[in-house]
Amino acid sequence: MIKVGIVGGTGYTGVELLRLLAQHPQVNLTAITSRGEAGSAVADMFPSLRGRISLAFSDPKDAALGDCDVVFFATPNGIAMQQARALLDAGVRIVDLAADFRIKDIAEWEKWYGMSHASPELVAEAVYGLPEVNREAIRTARLVANPGCYPTATQLGFLPLIESGCVDIEHLVADVKSGVSGGGRKAETHLLFAESSDNFKAYGVAGHRHLPEVRQGLGFAAGGKQVGLTFVPHLTPMIRGIHATLYAQITREEDFQALFERRYAEEPFVDVMPPRSHPDTRSVRASNICRIAVHRPQGGDTLVVLSVIDNLVKGAAGQAVQNMNLMCGLDEWLGLTQVPVLP
Amino acid sequence: MIKVGIVGGTGYTGVELLRLLAQHPQVNLTAITSRGEAGSAVADMFPSLRGRISLAFSDPKDAALGDCDVVFFATPNGIAMQQARALLDAGVRIVDLAADFRIKDIAEWEKWYGMSHASPELVAEAVYGLPEVNREAIRTARLVANPGCYPTATQLGFLPLIESGCVDIEHLVADVKSGVSGGGRKAETHLLFAESSDNFKAYGVAGHRHLPEVRQGLGFAAGGKQVGLTFVPHLTPMIRGIHATLYAQITREEDFQALFERRYAEEPFVDVMPPRSHPDTRSVRASNICRIAVHRPQGGDTLVVLSVIDNLVKGAAGQAVQNMNLMCGLDEWLGLTQVPVLP
Amino acid sequence: MIKVGIVGGTGYTGVELLRLLAQHPQVNLTAITSRGEAGSAVADMFPSLRGRISLAFSDPKDAALGDCDVVFFATPNGIAMQQARALLDAGVRIVDLAADFRIKDIAEWEKWYGMSHASPELVAEAVYGLPEVNREAIRTARLVANPGCYPTATQLGFLPLIESGCVDIEHLVADVKSGVSGGGRKAETHLLFAESSDNFKAYGVAGHRHLPEVRQGLGFAAGGKQVGLTFVPHLTPMIRGIHATLYAQITREEDFQALFERRYAEEPFVDVMPPRSHPDTRSVRASNICRIAVHRPQGGDTLVVLSVIDNLVKGAAGQAVQNMNLMCGLDEWLGLTQVPVLP
Amino acid sequence: MIKVGIVGGTGYTGVELLRLLAQHPQVNLTAITSRGEAGSAVADMFPSLRGRISLAFSDPKDAALGDCDVVFFATPNGIAMQQARALLDAGVRIVDLAADFRIKDIAEWEKWYGMSHASPELVAEAVYGLPEVNREAIRTARLVANPGCYPTATQLGFLPLIESGCVDIEHLVADVKSGVSGGGRKAETHLLFAESSDNFKAYGVAGHRHLPEVRQGLGFAAGGKQVGLTFVPHLTPMIRGIHATLYAQITREEDFQALFERRYAEEPFVDVMPPRSHPDTRSVRASNICRIAVHRPQGGDTLVVLSVIDNLVKGAAGQAVQNMNLMCGLDEWLGLTQVPVLP
Repeated sequence: MIKVGIVGGTGYTGVELLRLLAQHPQVNLTAITSRGEAGSAVADMFPSLRGRISLAFSDPKDAALGDCDVVFFATPNGIAMQQARALLDAGVRIVDLAADFRIKDIAEWEKWYGMSHASPELVAEAVYGLPEVNREAIRTARLVANPGCYPTATQLGFLPLIESGCVDIEHLVADVKSGVSGGGRKAETHLLFAESSDNFKAYGVAGHRHLPEVRQGLGFAAGGKQVGLTFVPHLTPMIRGIHATLYAQITREEDFQALFERRYAEEPFVDVMPPRSHPDTRSVRASNICRIAVHRPQGGDTLVVLSVIDNLVKGAAGQAVQNMNLMCGLDEWLGLTQVPVLP
Repeated sequence: MIKVGIVGGTGYTGVELLRLLAQHPQVNLTAITSRGEAGSAVADMFPSLRGRISLAFSDPKDAALGDCDVVFFATPNGIAMQQARALLDAGVRIVDLAADFRIKDIAEWEKWYGMSHASPELVAEAVYGLPEVNREAIRTARLVANPGCYPTATQLGFLPLIESGCVDIEHLVADVKSGVSGGGRKAETHLLFAESSDNFKAYGVAGHRHLPEVRQGLGFAAGGKQVGLTFVPHLTPMIRGIHATLYAQITREEDFQALFERRYAEEPFVDVMPPRSHPDTRSVRASNICRIAVHRPQGGDTLVVLSVIDNLVKGAAGQAVQNMNLMCGLDEWLGLTQVPVLP
Repeated sequence: MIKVGIVGGTGYTGVELLRLLAQHPQVNLTAITSRGEAGSAVADMFPSLRGRISLAFSDPKDAALGDCDVVFFATPNGIAMQQARALLDAGVRIVDLAADFRIKDIAEWEKWYGMSHASPELVAEAVYGLPEVNREAIRTARLVANPGCYPTATQLGFLPLIESGCVDIEHLVADVKSGVSGGGRKAETHLLFAESSDNFKAYGVAGHRHLPEVRQGLGFAAGGKQVGLTFVPHLTPMIRGIHATLYAQITREEDFQALFERRYAEEPFVDVMPPRSHPDTRSVRASNICRIAVHRPQGGDTLVVLSVIDNLVKGAAGQAVQNMNLMCGLDEWLGLTQVPVLP
Repeated sequence: MIKVGIVGGTGYTGVELLRLLAQHPQVNLTAITSRGEAGSAVADMFPSLRGRISLAFSDPKDAALGDCDVVFFATPNGIAMQQARALLDAGVRIVDLAADFRIKDIAEWEKWYGMSHASPELVAEAVYGLPEVNREAIRTARLVANPGCYPTATQLGFLPLIESGCVDIEHLVADVKSGVSGGGRKAETHLLFAESSDNFKAYGVAGHRHLPEVRQGLGFAAGGKQVGLTFVPHLTPMIRGIHATLYAQITREEDFQALFERRYAEEPFVDVMPPRSHPDTRSVRASNICRIAVHRPQGGDTLVVLSVIDNLVKGAAGQAVQNMNLMCGLDEWLGLTQVPVLP
């Protein structure tokens, strides 16, 4: 059994981690910290966990996180970079669900996240936790930077095209739509039901923090070349789900369907759908699956890739558990076999 | 392994059965019938099942249902009563998710369902599949009538009060609210998104088919006395979930909280919440749990009981699997340990 | 033209007032105050008003409210009771959309609202602004206490029964459901989309502030007798709308349909629907109408009344404008003729 | 007063026309036809119209449409092309809300709509009813082809760029999202609440009927040049609203904000928002307004235009009334001054 701790368990990625870990056959959940909620039972805050999680939140300073095998950070940005060093020194392995270790270029990170980085040397060590790209490195990593939700859906949709060099990487367009839980469990006006229900809007068109993360990942896939990407996120009136609609200009003919099927043939959590498919977000709801469809409308020179995930699972907590499984030598899919909830 | 067949797998109770059975460790799903979809893969209709259910729908006349240990009917009302006899004769045990065998009074059934009953003798044999009432009878039943969704939530909320004889059974009120999936996967105008979203309404106030079913169950609990029940269903803009708000006049003082806790102390799927709780439907979403809270506003003479279930799980497919587990001597909770999906 | 000011225009009742007043042919909107937003254009906060409202929010201390004919308070509870006296002394007439002047019993008010009342003498003077009850008094009132949303729907549904003395007033039940905008435009976790979408729950079962308000109104209708009312509010995943499902035991036979039709025959904003109707909330969306249907299920001794309003219109801003019209001698329906928005 | 008839008033564009015409000061609504609903009161089908529309549906063969000044066709595709000739001969002017007269290339129309065209000669005569392009022609037209919902939002967003020749017209991308009412009031499974709520998906990526319509309009704007457009529609879990996210590569520098402001300076229903704006669909809900914002992310060579409308108003019934106003010499905005409903 793996001893697991969670730092910051009161947000949506936290409660989703709890849902998944409560069903994981090899996990012994030993501590969940929350400064604000210390002492209160987890199941009092999240009645969905009544009878399944008996832990109470503990104060960060009291939690014996150093005894854990793996600690997840489900904290706001800027926390893990301050606490990771001590845990690593104690021999604990870490999966950070926030953005602290995702961007290799420290200056770039500091520009987008608006703070100084507390542990640049750990950024260099950290492995970007997208198993479909970095599986082997993840197995041995001490510190995994779990990808963002938009970046997961977007990269999985673009990777086969960019790795194979068959599209114009200077004019990529990612039109991405997220459910409202992607905004976190924060008391902010624009996330209110009466604001975001029966409504649709773009936001952050001038620049969203996930843009540099996607650009970095696609740049690696392009062999280090700079990619030109227009990235427009939208807020969608649903709880969970990301739908990335991706556009790329063809520069070399390929059997694009076969390209995608080949690229993901061995992947347990990527499902390349048959031609002419339109994956809907509910087809992956509450599961760790990414479903992808490739289209070439009217046989023109523009490819359209549709890529859907559950932002809280493959886009956060599920991918974090997948990374933990890899780090601990478990079957990659252990505890992640939930069938999507439809309807 | 239990060999299982499903008759009529294209509705919401059908796909939910498939979701649950795909994760059940002791089930070997051997056939799913659908006249309209015969030959097409189940996962083509429900992409959420891609990679998990490889069966195709088969024509009812070709399906070897007689070889099954258990057959579920997830059909419209009036089908199971025609086909059950032959299967029972072949030694198959049956769980009917429709209403064919729920009402003992044939005339009453025919009045509410608007057809002649094809197998009155099987109604007499059938066991009403509410395990919290009929657990022992279910274990040995050949034919189980799986309760309706409203009746499950309503009966579980009223039972402790009525069995203990501490309320006026002539003026019970059940104000019940259902998600739209309760209306089935039928192409009907009033179930359209643009009709039922951002909208709330009562329906069937003059009389709903679940009224006689609840009245029968509460009457049994009252030792055969007739109960007076006003039952008002409402359509709520959510996919899943039933919230029953139940009102009863106190006729004898009791520790009502203790009464409920005692009644359900051994029940694996009924959670009596602490005093002053307000269970929300999402706290049981996609799980087989019923959560109940008891209130006595302002210390007056009216009790308010709140009872929530997922209409497709404890209100349909989950309860059906619970019944199958009982019938087959398995642990009652096998395949039903999903943690509710929140948010 | 009537010179109108609004104190506190940044909540949902505020923006709804602005929507209605922008279309009112006899209103000259001269000031909107907001301490937090002073100086910023109203249309910057609410783009729906671009091109229709050119005012900026002004600081309360700078606004020339004393020059207005009518001032609306769309503020949190406890503000109007502090500022009303000075405005009244300046000859301004007031409609308070908050609860400060609704409850005649000061001690009762202070118990439910948790503060001392700053102007008890104004409570005595204030007229409860339910035109269907107090039309003549409203015409000459200086200070109108605009009813709450639940109380409007509940009272309009119960009044004919109680005024005519044909039901048991000791065991009334009001099972009421509200859209999320009823919780206000406040950054609170439980009002988030990801919390309240696809979810349904009761709240405040032990006691809600609208209970004493309804009890007072029904008590007046009962000729001063005390009424026994169980009042259970629910949060419904829709933006706007209140649906009250009301239960009463018959004590004297009547033609109940005729009773309701007679009672509201002259009312411009109450629509008694034909027998067997089920009004849905969208049938009054964005309009000032209350639609009511009366049922007597199975000819028993329990009446069920369904009463729907838009909580922001007839339940708040629309009723406030209706009161203003009455106070200023205008046609009662002026500026309130919007056709409900369906779908 | 203008005598108005409606053919086919039972869909969403029909009921929306009724909502708008009921409030129009110069309209005398004389007939609404529906074969299926002949004889039943309009307000029985749409209770939102109780007290506002007293007409009953009449059988098409009995309706005196020939006496009308203007007749709206709110019918499925393929009806108006059969009935328009006779009405025009009787001197009636027509606005067709369906697609029969939108595409000038008959073969193209027949390919996308799958039927032979019954009146090719009327296609030649018909004026495409986008007032921002064809205002003068509409004033004198006998037959107006009211634009589709996607085409309205998409064209208004692209037009300034294409007319001024500053973008690459061979690689335009329109990623468009529609509320579910855009699918019509049809009993189809994929439009059910339980299918389309809490879900998001693309559809028709291979080719949607609105693609040739947009391509035609943009081609006219480009002086007859062929445009290359990738057009991807998405189904969004909201009732009303279209959000078009448009991408174009810059080929010549411009002050793009000024370009848009200049282009629409005199337009009563197009609102160019300030730089850095993100219009949301609710900011135009239930109104005839199109709001547009122009972005140039990171100063790159890709422009992003956001364009939102209410699909049932500016995308259908509202634009139809706007066209009627122009045809009849009325103020263009008459009956269309509703303030958007927010929240």
